[in-house]
Parts: sequence; structure tokens; C-alpha cells
Amino acid sequence: MTEELEVLFEKLAKDYEQRKFADLRMILLDMEPTDIAAFMEETLDDKDQIRFFRLLPKELASDVFVEIDTDTQEHLIKAFSDTELKAVIDDMFLDDTVDIIEEMPANVVKRILETATPENRKQLNELLEYPDDSAGSIMTTEFVALSASMTVAKAFDKIRKTGINSETIYTCYVTDGKKHLIGVVTVKTLLLSQMTDIIAEVMDDAPISVETLEDKEDVAMKLSKYDFLALPVVDKEGCIVGIVTVDDAVDVLQEEATEDIQKMAAILPTEKPYLKQSVWSIWKARIPWLLLLMVSATFTSMILSGYEEKLALLPTGAVLYAFVPMLMDTAGNAGGQSSVTVIRSLALNEVEFKDIFRVIWKELRVSILLAITVAAVCFAKLMLIDRLYNTFDWTVAAIVSGVLFLTIVMAKFVGCILPLIAKKCRLDPAVVASPFITTIVDALSLIIYCSVAIALLG
Amino acid sequence: MTEELEVLFEKLAKDYEQRKFADLRMILLDMEPTDIAAFMEETLDDKDQIRFFRLLPKELASDVFVEIDTDTQEHLIKAFSDTELKAVIDDMFLDDTVDIIEEMPANVVKRILETATPENRKQLNELLEYPDDSAGSIMTTEFVALSASMTVAKAFDKIRKTGINSETIYTCYVTDGKKHLIGVVTVKTLLLSQMTDIIAEVMDDAPISVETLEDKEDVAMKLSKYDFLALPVVDKEGCIVGIVTVDDAVDVLQEEATEDIQKMAAILPTEKPYLKQSVWSIWKARIPWLLLLMVSATFTSMILSGYEEKLALLPTGAVLYAFVPMLMDTAGNAGGQSSVTVIRSLALNEVEFKDIFRVIWKELRVSILLAITVAAVCFAKLMLIDRLYNTFDWTVAAIVSGVLFLTIVMAKFVGCILPLIAKKCRLDPAVVASPFITTIVDALSLIIYCSVAIALLG
Repeated sequence: MTEELEVLFEKLAKDYEQRKFADLRMILLDMEPTDIAAFMEETLDDKDQIRFFRLLPKELASDVFVEIDTDTQEHLIKAFSDTELKAVIDDMFLDDTVDIIEEMPANVVKRILETATPENRKQLNELLEYPDDSAGSIMTTEFVALSASMTVAKAFDKIRKTGINSETIYTCYVTDGKKHLIGVVTVKTLLLSQMTDIIAEVMDDAPISVETLEDKEDVAMKLSKYDFLALPVVDKEGCIVGIVTVDDAVDVLQEEATEDIQKMAAILPTEKPYLKQSVWSIWKARIPWLLLLMVSATFTSMILSGYEEKLALLPTGAVLYAFVPMLMDTAGNAGGQSSVTVIRSLALNEVEFKDIFRVIWKELRVSILLAITVAAVCFAKLMLIDRLYNTFDWTVAAIVSGVLFLTIVMAKFVGCILPLIAKKCRLDPAVVASPFITTIVDALSLIIYCSVAIALLG
Repeated sequence: MTEELEVLFEKLAKDYEQRKFADLRMILLDMEPTDIAAFMEETLDDKDQIRFFRLLPKELASDVFVEIDTDTQEHLIKAFSDTELKAVIDDMFLDDTVDIIEEMPANVVKRILETATPENRKQLNELLEYPDDSAGSIMTTEFVALSASMTVAKAFDKIRKTGINSETIYTCYVTDGKKHLIGVVTVKTLLLSQMTDIIAEVMDDAPISVETLEDKEDVAMKLSKYDFLALPVVDKEGCIVGIVTVDDAVDVLQEEATEDIQKMAAILPTEKPYLKQSVWSIWKARIPWLLLLMVSATFTSMILSGYEEKLALLPTGAVLYAFVPMLMDTAGNAGGQSSVTVIRSLALNEVEFKDIFRVIWKELRVSILLAITVAAVCFAKLMLIDRLYNTFDWTVAAIVSGVLFLTIVMAKFVGCILPLIAKKCRLDPAVVASPFITTIVDALSLIIYCSVAIALLG
């Protein structure tokens, strides 16, 4: 939080305590809704939150409500009278209402739907039916629709009339009598046109749109690729049913990045901020992979045990054990570098499955260069440093370095193809590839190490 | 790439080959610049790229140029006549020109600056002086400025006059005679106001702004937090010098997420897409951490060697070695889960250093729950599965599971505090914490394992 905001929060708290409500309202009117929401969450207890909320200027109330966290929203709704709830709900954009409904328990949802106007209730029920990760689930049905035969002057009238209830007015959608999307025109274009121009002449008649069931991440990527402020969502008949705005797209992109990061770290993705998650929900998100990976490490124990007798016969058997962690860590790091690079490139649409041979060819050259460098440095390190605390000759150093070379090349190969194969099989590359890479690469590098050592030293 | 786009690209390629340039232009006029750029990069060779670029309708040329990748831009500029270069550069927004200049070799930069109008050259030079990661480096100086005493009608005149050269017209900035930022007004507000209203009455007079030297990631987070389309950038005197638009903010957020992911995977962050990077540049991004982590694994070898003689005396010494990989991997995964969670929360401003005790308390409870579960499952697995291929009794199983418990709690503690401490020391949490966690946690878990085993079994 910035210092400026901290000072403001202290002033708010003081005015609220001293019941200087007129002063308070003056400050609130100049504040952004998200900051007011943060103030309520951080400074006030449950009872004061509802009292404070009732002090909010009417035009701010629903904007602030949207920004408050889910738990507080639930408290507030339970404290609201029906009239209060109706005022807040009616004033919200439908996509925000949908977001809130999705987080609420059944009895609260019922109350919200009962409070909504019949028309809004119908639209809310439709929006709630779209799958969680679809364009439909993040779109809003409030936008400006124009007809192609209108003049620019008429279009401005329409914008003025519907503008206050639309989430964005800057991109207007041109439809025919049957709601088919036939064009797009921005307010910028309208402002730079003559008032007597016909919309059909000034609109862009090849609008880019998405379908209701398209993945919301693809929708967000598309919006960002084209630098649009909004994207129209059409049904299978090409009729416009809503729009996705840039602010929601930004949130989707941030969430997806967070989810990918969580998956790469062997955590089940969660939407709530860390500090707001309960200990149990964090446990639930972390335990599955932790257990699975622990159990799958049985392979490494089996491999080590399997080679144990033969290794014990070698004069340098015990020395060889000492380098197992270094080999495994390096292999894990090398594989992780490749898999994470490919996973992120897939997420950003920079790489597709058809690029698999380009990726393999690139990784092969990179891995050989990396493996040569690391193996050479390792050999030098073994001869100069490790021999200070351990006894072995240059053949052991050569074997360890040589195996390191092989494991790096192998780890990078596994690391780059696994995410691509996962993608091809319509599995999530981040889930399938990342946490497994370590286990696979560990097992393979142990097999290479033990068999090479026994073959050459035995 | 969507199928639709593939069909379009084939049509374009055919028309170009058959020299149907009129048809080609018709198609191009309906296409988005970024798609045309993708077509040129993917389908045409160097010579055809310049020929094709010359076919572009004039109003599209600079928009397409901005979207082309750096290498192709350089080719094109070298092939341009001075007049062509001037036409493209004059038509571009200044922030896009700055982005291009930053990627070009010195001789190309010189040519671009010589071609620009004197006024643009001055502004370009100023923009180029801002540090790479500052608000100044991503802002544009082209925006609509209004004065507080104007009427709404006058404001629209001003917007129409400057609109075509401004990156966004939807948020207008109100300044006094000395360019101090005193208010903000959106076109939506203007459209919903009376033409005779005075700007001072309808504007928001507490505008949120950022300073030129603020970190561009903070600027992008701020823009996303407030759901704005643009944020004004002011100098130390409070004079507006530019704006950052939402499309650039989205790019910054995506880049920062990519960079954090790369850092967590022990890769130096790079801006170029993976397939466009040379083998050497990938090598350079990956080798430093790979080497450093390989060398730092010397500690684990030293620890294992240090305990070797004592372990060898134990009747179950060889069995204990078999579980080292499982212990180390689980510790690494457990630590990684915590560090990645905290790193991402720091990046999203959900957690600050002052939350350190809340984080530790939360992680402590989570880690004990996780450790109990994992240790219990591990004990069962050891007794039921691992004894099928190895000989040991329940005391060994109890020691391994007990040590697993301790290492998970320890790994989660290290994983959650390291990023917070890094942040406090103004170091990058993703760089400092993530790749080191494995090394630190490996070393600590080995020490715990060996010393507990020797103490209890020796």
C-alpha cells in the first residue's frame, strides 16, 4: 500500500470514529471504489462494515460492493434489508452479479435472484449456465447495439440513452434485425465522422468475435493480441449475446498465470489470495502432489537398492553415492528449465504442437552446449575441490562428469517433449509435465549413473 | 492459429503469387494489423516482405509495422527509402517508435531519429532517457489535454482535432496553464453531460497518477486494480508528461509473469519468444544458474561424505542411502510450494513484508498437517512396499518417516521466509529464493537425516 493511501485510511478511520459523516462522504466521493473496499476490509469489524457501507454515497455503493472480498460480501448481504439488497444488485453490471453469485451459498443466491428484476433474473440464470472457464461466464450482456442504417447523430443518441447502463460505450456493436453481429464501430470513429454519416459506411464490417463456449483464457489472449477494449461474444447462429471487456480479460490473464505457476510448483490451483485461504484449503491444495511425488520416489529407492550390491563391490562405491544428490539436482534443474520454457510458450501461443521438431532440434543443440560446459566445470571442480575431502582418481571424476553430460541432454529432451505431448493429448501441460519431470529425470539419471559406473569400474 | 486465419493466409499467399493486388488490398483492409504481420513473418521471405509491405494500404502500413518482429523490422528499415521510413515513423505513436528504437542497432536508430520531425525527435530523445523498467519507458506523450474552463462542446472540438493522433481519446486529462494535472474526464461522462456544461464541473478532480520513474510493473498493477483504460504519468512538479494505456499495461503484466516463471525455473529472464531466440542466447540465459547450482551441490556431497564412515558402520547403512532421493525430492517439493506461493503473492501485492508473522504462522500450521499426512503415508509405504525389495525393520521406517516430517516443516519454513527476506533487502524474491531453496533444503535435510539415523541406530 502506498503512503498516500495509508494517510487517507487513517483520516477515514478518524472521521468515522468521531462521527464526522459529512467530512467522510466528501473524502469518499473522491476515492476509487477498490480503495474504499480495501479500507473496509482492513480497518472495520463486521458490525462497522455494514454501518459504514450504509454511509456510502448512493452512486458509489454498488461499485464498492463489487470490490469487497467474498466473505465480507456475504456478511453484508445477510445484514441488508431486501430494499438495500435490491438497490445494490440493480445497480451492478450483470457480469459482476454473476461473479458474486458464483461464490455465495445457496440461500444467499436465492435471495439475490428473488430481489432482481424479472428481466435481470432471466439473464442472470442464462449467464450462470455457462461453464466456469467459458467466454460466456465472464461476459456481460450490457453493451451498446446500433443498427447499420442509423446516422452517426442517431447513434450518439442511442449511446447517451443506453450508455449509463453499459460497461463500455467505446466500442458499439452493429446488428441486423435478428441480432446477427454485422459490424463494429468505435466512439473514436463516430467522433471523427460527420453527424450525417450512415453507420454502415463508417463501421468495420469484418468484426472479430468469440463464441460463448470458447475458453476464457483464449478470449483474453485474443483481446490482448488485438489490443481491443472489448470483444463481442456470439452464439452458434452468429447473434451477439454479450461482450468481454479488457478489465475482465486482464484479470483472467493474471489468474491463469497464477494458476500455471501454482501447477508448476505442484500445487492445485486456487483462486483466493493466499492470506485469505484457510489452513485446511491450503493443505488440500498441496497434499495430493506432495503425496504422489513422495510415493513415486519409490522408483529411485528401488533403483538405488537394485544396484546396491554391485556398487558395494566397487572400491569407490561409497564415493559414488556422494554425488547422487548433485547429479539429480542438476538433472532436475536442467529439465525444469526446458519444461517451464515450453509450458509458458504454449500458454502464450508462441509454440504449438506442430513446432515439436523445431523445439527438439533447438533443445538438442542448447542441451549439448550446456552439458559440455557443466560437465567440464564439474570435472574441474571434482579434481580441485572434492578431492580435498574425498579420495578418488580422475576416472571417477570423468565418469561423474560424463554421466552429468548424458543426464543434462536426457533431462532437456524429456523436459521439452512432455509438455508438448500433454498439449497434444488435450491435457494441461503445466499439470502433467512440471511436477513429474523431477521424478522421471531422477529415475533415469540414477539408472544411467549406476549402470555406467558399474560397467566402467566393475 | 485458428482455422479461419489459416484459410485467410492461404488466400493471401495465392493472391500475392498471382499478382492479384486489387483483391489482396480488399482483403487486407478488413484484416487486423497483427494478423497481417503474422502472415508476413510466417509466409514470406526477406525480399517478398518488403514488396508485400509496399502493397499495404497507406493507413495500415505503420500499424502493421509496429506488430512485426524485431528482425523483420530491421530488414524492412534497411530496405526502405528515406521517404518510406519517414511515412511509417511519422504515422506511428511515439511509444511504439521508442519500443522499436530500443531494439535496433545504432546505425538504424540514427536513421530513424534523422527521419523524424524535429519536434518528434526531441520527444523521442526524452522518452529514450527513461530507465528500462520505468513508467516513462512505456508511456506515450500523445493524449488529449483539456482545460478546466472549457465547455463540453469545446472539449469535443478539441478531441476531434487531436483525436486522430492520440493513442486513446476516451480518457482526457485536464491541466492548468502550467500543465499541472488537475483533473480527469472520460468521454462517457462528456457524452452524458450537457454541451454547455463546464469541464471543471464534470471532471474528477482527484485523479490517480503515477510518476515517471515508478516501476512499470507497479504502474500496470495500478491500472489493473482500478480498471482504468489509461493512467496519467506526471513529473516531480505534478505536470502531466504522458499516459500509459491499458494495452501496454497488459503486455507488461504478461512479461512480468513470464519473467517470474523463468526466474523460478533458474533461467535468466529474456523478452524474446522462445522460437526466435538463438541457441547461444538460450545457453546464456540458462548456464549461470545451472553451473551455480551444480557447484553449490558440493555441499550435499560433502555432507554425505562426512557422514559416510559412520553410516557404513550401521547395519542398515546401505538401506538408508536408498531413501536419500525420496527425502530430498519431497523436501524440495514442499519448500517449492511455499516459496512459489509467497513469491506470486508478493508479485500480486497480496502479501507484504509486514505480513511475515502471519505467513510463518500459517505455513507452520499447514506444514505440520502436511508433514503428519506425508510421514504417515510414507511409513505405511515403507512397511508395505519397500520391504518387498529391501530388508529393514520398523525402526528404520520410523526414522525415515520421522525425518521426513522434520524436513517438510523445515523446508516450508525456509521456503516462506526466504522470499520475504529477499523482498525486504530489495532483492528480487523470484531470483533469490526459488532456485536456492532446493540447495538449502537438500543440505539441511541430509544433515537431519544422517545425524538422526546415526544417533538412533549407531
